[in-house]
Amino acid sequence: MIRLAILGSTGSIGRQTLEVVRSLRRRFRVVGLAAGHNVTLLEEQAREFSPSLLWADREGDYLQQKAPSLRARWTPMDEMACHPEVDIVVVATAGRAGLVPTLAAANAGKVVALANKEVLVMAGHLVVAAARQHGAELRPIDSEHSAIWQCLWGEDRAGISRVILTGSGGAFRDLSPDDLARVTAEEALRHPTWQMGHKVTIDSATLLNKGLEAIEAHWLFGVPFDKIDVVLHRESIVHSLVEFRDGSVKAQLGMPDMRLPIQCALTYPQRWPAARVKRLDLARLGTLAFCEPDPRRFPCLGLALEAGRRGGTFPTAMAAADEVAVEHFLAGRIGFMDIPRVIETTLTAHDGTVEPSLDDVLAADAWARRWAEDWLRARA
Amino acid sequence: MIRLAILGSTGSIGRQTLEVVRSLRRRFRVVGLAAGHNVTLLEEQAREFSPSLLWADREGDYLQQKAPSLRARWTPMDEMACHPEVDIVVVATAGRAGLVPTLAAANAGKVVALANKEVLVMAGHLVVAAARQHGAELRPIDSEHSAIWQCLWGEDRAGISRVILTGSGGAFRDLSPDDLARVTAEEALRHPTWQMGHKVTIDSATLLNKGLEAIEAHWLFGVPFDKIDVVLHRESIVHSLVEFRDGSVKAQLGMPDMRLPIQCALTYPQRWPAARVKRLDLARLGTLAFCEPDPRRFPCLGLALEAGRRGGTFPTAMAAADEVAVEHFLAGRIGFMDIPRVIETTLTAHDGTVEPSLDDVLAADAWARRWAEDWLRARA
Repeated sequence: MIRLAILGSTGSIGRQTLEVVRSLRRRFRVVGLAAGHNVTLLEEQAREFSPSLLWADREGDYLQQKAPSLRARWTPMDEMACHPEVDIVVVATAGRAGLVPTLAAANAGKVVALANKEVLVMAGHLVVAAARQHGAELRPIDSEHSAIWQCLWGEDRAGISRVILTGSGGAFRDLSPDDLARVTAEEALRHPTWQMGHKVTIDSATLLNKGLEAIEAHWLFGVPFDKIDVVLHRESIVHSLVEFRDGSVKAQLGMPDMRLPIQCALTYPQRWPAARVKRLDLARLGTLAFCEPDPRRFPCLGLALEAGRRGGTFPTAMAAADEVAVEHFLAGRIGFMDIPRVIETTLTAHDGTVEPSLDDVLAADAWARRWAEDWLRARA
Repeated sequence: MIRLAILGSTGSIGRQTLEVVRSLRRRFRVVGLAAGHNVTLLEEQAREFSPSLLWADREGDYLQQKAPSLRARWTPMDEMACHPEVDIVVVATAGRAGLVPTLAAANAGKVVALANKEVLVMAGHLVVAAARQHGAELRPIDSEHSAIWQCLWGEDRAGISRVILTGSGGAFRDLSPDDLARVTAEEALRHPTWQMGHKVTIDSATLLNKGLEAIEAHWLFGVPFDKIDVVLHRESIVHSLVEFRDGSVKAQLGMPDMRLPIQCALTYPQRWPAARVKRLDLARLGTLAFCEPDPRRFPCLGLALEAGRRGGTFPTAMAAADEVAVEHFLAGRIGFMDIPRVIETTLTAHDGTVEPSLDDVLAADAWARRWAEDWLRARA
């Protein structure tokens, strides 16, 4: 019986994690559930899974009073993440909320199943160092990183010669630069293969997403940026690949379904049946297509990789500027091709810190948000 | 320093094995070299690699006399295969010649790197039993089986739900049944992606080859036939795939180059650089295509799988009948679509033995050859 704490249980990954748990009831026990503000769903989840630890970041008063009748203790996420009853901490929170709990889990030597991009983008060096020092294990939930991770089972990481991240290319993969300048938020939200939140869908359309994933891959697998490539693959069937130094390439494939990487992270090193995951039928699919990303049309990818290479607080500043820019784009205040402009100007203005502490990271995050907002206001 | 005996060193796989050894000189020592009849090349190889054990099946008198001056002992293959100085036995012989040496190596608990199809098709049950009993390790050299093997590193075989063998479809993948009936040996020998011997190239055009590989996969990975699929993939880039019970699929990819699976079998569990192996560039390739094999156009595949399912001496009879049929086809005496007819009639007439001994297998082989020859003569 594997004991889970799920941070961000009411979000998309959190709910799909509980679906996996439902399908493998005898294997898992949900010990902790934590959410942001969706206390209605959180209460429902608590009634179904009877966790002993419960938490909501906001709007929690109502539920906190009910906690005793639910036989749960009201427990902040960072405490839940290192609780002795927990074996695996699923970090499925959005944004910076996962940072402190992930560090707490790593410091407690837990298995951390990580779906939150910002954690490694902002504080990869801190998380990896804590995990190494305390014997914690980081398992990716993102489909790309899960693919790379699966390809590395039984392999010596010294043998890696290249990590190849695939991306669908997002909603605008076939548009010209001129057309890209005119797209609306509504058009951007129609992602061709994956159902995701708004922020991620826009990041997918700008390809910034692949830059964030490259930074995550850098930390998860200890691979330098010059060994990380991005290739566009519109069918989203090959989730990523690893090339080894003997020229052999391994890939992980599957129908686009997040329950697969989630289950993989929970059951490793075993694989258990997943009746609901649709099986891959290559002959039926017919063809798989691959192409290079176009740096002119998708400058965000290059900016994100550049921030990753510079390291320190640059990835944090890049991600924060992007968040501000995407918010403005979704509100219809700026154009699609303004997103890379906001990021570029923020990175140019950023005075990066080397080997930043968590406080340095959070300060860089706050600075970049303010700077991007100010720049956009001055420009408006 | 890994010590190698290479049986069949003058054939295509043998020569490519020596290329790999040449590129990784400090890792390997060639202790034994054995060939069929190409004593000129064998002598050259012996001068270059100074093996202490040497053998030629035929035309060996001349070389045997020279052996002392080459500082080599004249040593039959089955003796070489279990020699205490040998760590890995590369079985790259053609046809039945590999059978007895492979069993000797398995009985001596060696690592056996296996490129010879007939060994497992004819005596898979004996080889696997001997390997299990004496702790020998079987490593495939065939590109498809190497792919499956690599996909299984770090995996529990209980998690396999399907093995998917890919095949280029051979020289006639796009022909209609009527056209197939009229093709010549010369046309059949133009394989689209792999350079191989005549027999293998014809087996590749009839898809019988994929049936033989399914039988090998059955023995190598302990997978029942209803979990082995064949999919056609004209680019020969995805060398095969494994589906696991959670729905995840792993594939091994690479440019078609036999040096890659050979090196993999020699260096496992490590991966060493292979400067000469061309790197895969997916974006440059553009697309990878997959389709179902057509049983009407390629009846040999179904016949071979059926023989595999029936087990015992049926795979031996099938492979022997095919060898006879391919010989007649290459000589221009029968048509391409007569090859499955010879196999079918032989299998119908075959009185199979369950759990056959090596003698039973060799008797079934001799019977099937005779029967197929007689049938063809009566029909001519």
